Amino acid sequence: MTQMLSEEKIFVQTQILRPQLDVEGFRLVSGAFLPELEIAYETYGTLNAYQSNAIFICSHLTSDAHAAGWHSEDDKQPGWWDEMIGPGKSIDTLRHFVIASNMLGGCKGTTGPASIDPRSGKPYGSNFPVIEIADIVNVQRLLTKNLGIDVLEAVIGGSLGGMQALQWTVSYPDKVKKCMGIATAASLSAQALGFEVIGRKVILEDSSFRMGDYYSDGKGPDRGLRLARMIGHLTYLSSASMDTKFGRQHREGIKPGKFETDFSIESYLDHKADAFVGRFDANSYLHITYAMDCFDLARSYGSLEDAFKKTQAEFLLVALSSDWLFPPEQTRDITRVLLKQGKVASEITLNSPYGHDAFLLEVENLGRVIESFLNPVDHTPFPGIRKDSVTESSRRSREKQETIFNSTEDFVRLRDLIEPQSHVLDVGCGDGSLIDFLWKTKRVTGVGIDIDLDSVVACLAKNVPVFQTNVDEGLADVGTGLFDYAILNRTLQEVRHPVMLLRELLRVAKKGIVTFPNFAHLRNRVSLAIQGVMPISESLPYSWHNTPNIHLFSYADFEALCKSEGIHIECALSIGRSVLSRLLVKTGFLNLGAEYAIVRISYQNKPSASINPT
Amino acid sequence: MTQMLSEEKIFVQTQILRPQLDVEGFRLVSGAFLPELEIAYETYGTLNAYQSNAIFICSHLTSDAHAAGWHSEDDKQPGWWDEMIGPGKSIDTLRHFVIASNMLGGCKGTTGPASIDPRSGKPYGSNFPVIEIADIVNVQRLLTKNLGIDVLEAVIGGSLGGMQALQWTVSYPDKVKKCMGIATAASLSAQALGFEVIGRKVILEDSSFRMGDYYSDGKGPDRGLRLARMIGHLTYLSSASMDTKFGRQHREGIKPGKFETDFSIESYLDHKADAFVGRFDANSYLHITYAMDCFDLARSYGSLEDAFKKTQAEFLLVALSSDWLFPPEQTRDITRVLLKQGKVASEITLNSPYGHDAFLLEVENLGRVIESFLNPVDHTPFPGIRKDSVTESSRRSREKQETIFNSTEDFVRLRDLIEPQSHVLDVGCGDGSLIDFLWKTKRVTGVGIDIDLDSVVACLAKNVPVFQTNVDEGLADVGTGLFDYAILNRTLQEVRHPVMLLRELLRVAKKGIVTFPNFAHLRNRVSLAIQGVMPISESLPYSWHNTPNIHLFSYADFEALCKSEGIHIECALSIGRSVLSRLLVKTGFLNLGAEYAIVRISYQNKPSASINPT
Repeated sequence: MTQMLSEEKIFVQTQILRPQLDVEGFRLVSGAFLPELEIAYETYGTLNAYQSNAIFICSHLTSDAHAAGWHSEDDKQPGWWDEMIGPGKSIDTLRHFVIASNMLGGCKGTTGPASIDPRSGKPYGSNFPVIEIADIVNVQRLLTKNLGIDVLEAVIGGSLGGMQALQWTVSYPDKVKKCMGIATAASLSAQALGFEVIGRKVILEDSSFRMGDYYSDGKGPDRGLRLARMIGHLTYLSSASMDTKFGRQHREGIKPGKFETDFSIESYLDHKADAFVGRFDANSYLHITYAMDCFDLARSYGSLEDAFKKTQAEFLLVALSSDWLFPPEQTRDITRVLLKQGKVASEITLNSPYGHDAFLLEVENLGRVIESFLNPVDHTPFPGIRKDSVTESSRRSREKQETIFNSTEDFVRLRDLIEPQSHVLDVGCGDGSLIDFLWKTKRVTGVGIDIDLDSVVACLAKNVPVFQTNVDEGLADVGTGLFDYAILNRTLQEVRHPVMLLRELLRVAKKGIVTFPNFAHLRNRVSLAIQGVMPISESLPYSWHNTPNIHLFSYADFEALCKSEGIHIECALSIGRSVLSRLLVKTGFLNLGAEYAIVRISYQNKPSASINPT
Repeated sequence: MTQMLSEEKIFVQTQILRPQLDVEGFRLVSGAFLPELEIAYETYGTLNAYQSNAIFICSHLTSDAHAAGWHSEDDKQPGWWDEMIGPGKSIDTLRHFVIASNMLGGCKGTTGPASIDPRSGKPYGSNFPVIEIADIVNVQRLLTKNLGIDVLEAVIGGSLGGMQALQWTVSYPDKVKKCMGIATAASLSAQALGFEVIGRKVILEDSSFRMGDYYSDGKGPDRGLRLARMIGHLTYLSSASMDTKFGRQHREGIKPGKFETDFSIESYLDHKADAFVGRFDANSYLHITYAMDCFDLARSYGSLEDAFKKTQAEFLLVALSSDWLFPPEQTRDITRVLLKQGKVASEITLNSPYGHDAFLLEVENLGRVIESFLNPVDHTPFPGIRKDSVTESSRRSREKQETIFNSTEDFVRLRDLIEPQSHVLDVGCGDGSLIDFLWKTKRVTGVGIDIDLDSVVACLAKNVPVFQTNVDEGLADVGTGLFDYAILNRTLQEVRHPVMLLRELLRVAKKGIVTFPNFAHLRNRVSLAIQGVMPISESLPYSWHNTPNIHLFSYADFEALCKSEGIHIECALSIGRSVLSRLLVKTGFLNLGAEYAIVRISYQNKPSASINPT
């Protein structure tokens, strides 16, 4: 993954759009109107002739239109997501035309409570109307239209920006091709609401707040805003990262007042809050956090299903492992609904220690995830499977067991068990090669599940929707009957609860296809019976102590289990390289001759399809 | 576990002790003096003739001396830990004499900032000196001495109360027999400090605070205290429990002001904060939280090791799985040090969804843990192992495999590999029977490790120190060379990383003793070679798909691994019930005849002990 990182600073300027409005002004969802509207925005890269390469970056709570580049040589730092956006970077401005803006209600150039109300000639203050996330997105839509863009290639945002990205796909279901939400949610959790609520209360309690009309004498509710920012700031960090960064260190040269401390964390909070008060307006903080708290796609549209019903976007949702403000379960809630509706949706949980803030800090892995999602590469056409997209750290099991199994010939055998144009779930999908192959050769669509990050990124890079999760935790997030086939390719022997997983396969799909090494293969029997040691073979290539294969079983064992579970084995194929193996299988000794078994299963009481590939 | 729960209300009264002090008064750690001291306390049960049954309950941040019973018929609720303390309850007042008090600096009868300073005749207010947790404990010691008690049978506390309990063992190392700390830490984490710091700031920012001298006109910093309590309250709850309890529910009949919401969580916080302001003093809140924040045993005594060096107490530390204010890792930090010092220490992590508050709410499991710790029962003397202490839900593997292995005869064979009076670690110790047996028959001391709660409680009930952890996560928390022997009894085949664990065994102990089922036993070979199915036998009693034995291997496999790891097999014994098995082993065919193998291992370069039990 080479990055053509530009060494030169890119200079940009924030621009102001004053869009043409109706006579009454800009209509908010509430029915209220803003008589005038200004939108502060920046763009990076060049819009192509078809206006098809525009990416909208939705900003988070306290960020502004200055997402990338530098305003001047004297700047101390570039835009807030400059590490991600630029020529040759993950959001590559050599390819894409990138737009960022200050959100409605903000205080950095777009109309907000501190703007002058043309009706009174004074700042709006307490007269600024209540806004919703949908209003913020409507303003963004107005901006993109004014820039000559009808359909966005992608909309991307983290945290509150992710909420906006989701709202885009709901408000403008045919105007967004790809939606990426990072560390976000369809509504805040009770805990996050609690901290938000307290944050607003400390501002409202500040005697300088005066209902929001504090602009005239320049004395705003700074003390309240300071405290609110401190509370918020703590929720953006993880406990582990705070322990690493501050621990119980004491800061030198501080003379704390009574009941204050010289702990580093206290001076850090003081410092951050002071800086924030200098750059943010309390009314904007109140309006935007209130909009965030009230954001609830399920409530606004009846249900999450109803909210996303019409969207045509492909989704990628990225959760962060240590994010407790927007915890990964909330991302899962969205993915579950999208999967259920057959939308093209992927989900990744990045392992990061930095808490919610990681979407700004954890650039390396997030960068390659974004890159793979935005620019999937059409790999070598089949037959002939690319291996080079799997990186070093991919699961060893894949790499080694591929030597015997993962050849095109075997994919072909598996494919022959599947009807054309059906929909499959590949549980333990690795780099997505099988789904990619099924799509290219039989127009079979599929969703993959895997726990390994490299595998998941490889799937995205092949345009294979993928859901990063631990198969040992089951398929609980996959809706019933969503798929025609669920495939368990060389995975059953690796899971903790094989029976549970088999049942789950046949819950989420009409049929299951399972491949596994047969422990009763002739060579394995000889190894144990004669040599008294655990077999190591092509199909079971590991030592007993470092094998991922934690459940060993024979074809006969599998057959007996299916019988007791009421599962029908529709057909069973075998793979055995040696002549003797093939001969044994041909003469009916499958359990003795098969190195690998491939079986298609279904529940007996359900009618089976007509394919009989044997 | 029958509980003689009293159906009648027990009535108690809070009493006030005015202890005799030196002329200057009560000396604080800082060197300052309190001219007078009053201590509010309650007692439950009867002190025995030897004064040996006294248990001190240390209260948490906002609780008082009224820990149990009822003050009057009109009370709406009993004392704050009444579910735990009383006749026949977990802290059984028919057996123990229980003492609780309001802490120094509090506002419920014990001297605090709202008390009258005899020197001025006015409340202390801003003149109340800074206090430390050690001061709070010194006052408690004064109280117990005045009650005629020299040595406490136990000191128990949760959260801040747990900090006091730890401080007791440090300040009075020979005056506490047992110490139980629940959801506590040797110092607050950076995250917890952060929330504390903000909580104090909102009080200090309240214009009614006036440096703490607000008693004269009855107008205190109620708004600040309300907000501080809200912040604190959120940290006591888990996100999951808040989602369950509040979610995004809206409360009916509320007319929220601008930027307020009708979310249930907001009205809950308002309600809780209002109630708190009515019963707590802001100065007490500041003083006690400040003492809690500055509590740092490692810093105060040079290191945690130094702090605990002299203590003679037996420890039980209980962490709560969803507690993010006092996270389980902080409990682990204490246990690690105690283990390293050879103290008698146990640690349990209770699986609870309720967050930090669970130490007050999660009564069932906590209750039986406390009960087992306080009143271990001396079980039937060996030989002859009690099985009835293992409850239903104990690991099935134990129960089943016991049929072949866990008889006294087998314990005897294992014991013969161990020197008298040595110190052992039993990894995967189950109910502690082996350690108990080794103690009773050979004065071998031991510590157990197990993940199962029932097993851990059974260990406590046998007075076997135990450390609840997942062996798959390794023995990282066990110091190097702490033990003479580390035992892995029927556990190696169940772990994810057998080689890592073997290395760990020989890191933490001089020798390892490992027992495991031999997969190359004659019967197993026959099963696979002839029948083509996975063996089910006495030593491997499970079906392939629901076995906890995730790594199958033969004695020969084990031998080969030891060779490649440079591990010396000092001696190998076998267990085989059948005559043929015994004959095979006798004639040298250990790998064919042994159903179970018992081996003692060490690193080759270390000299082995002289025992040769064969």
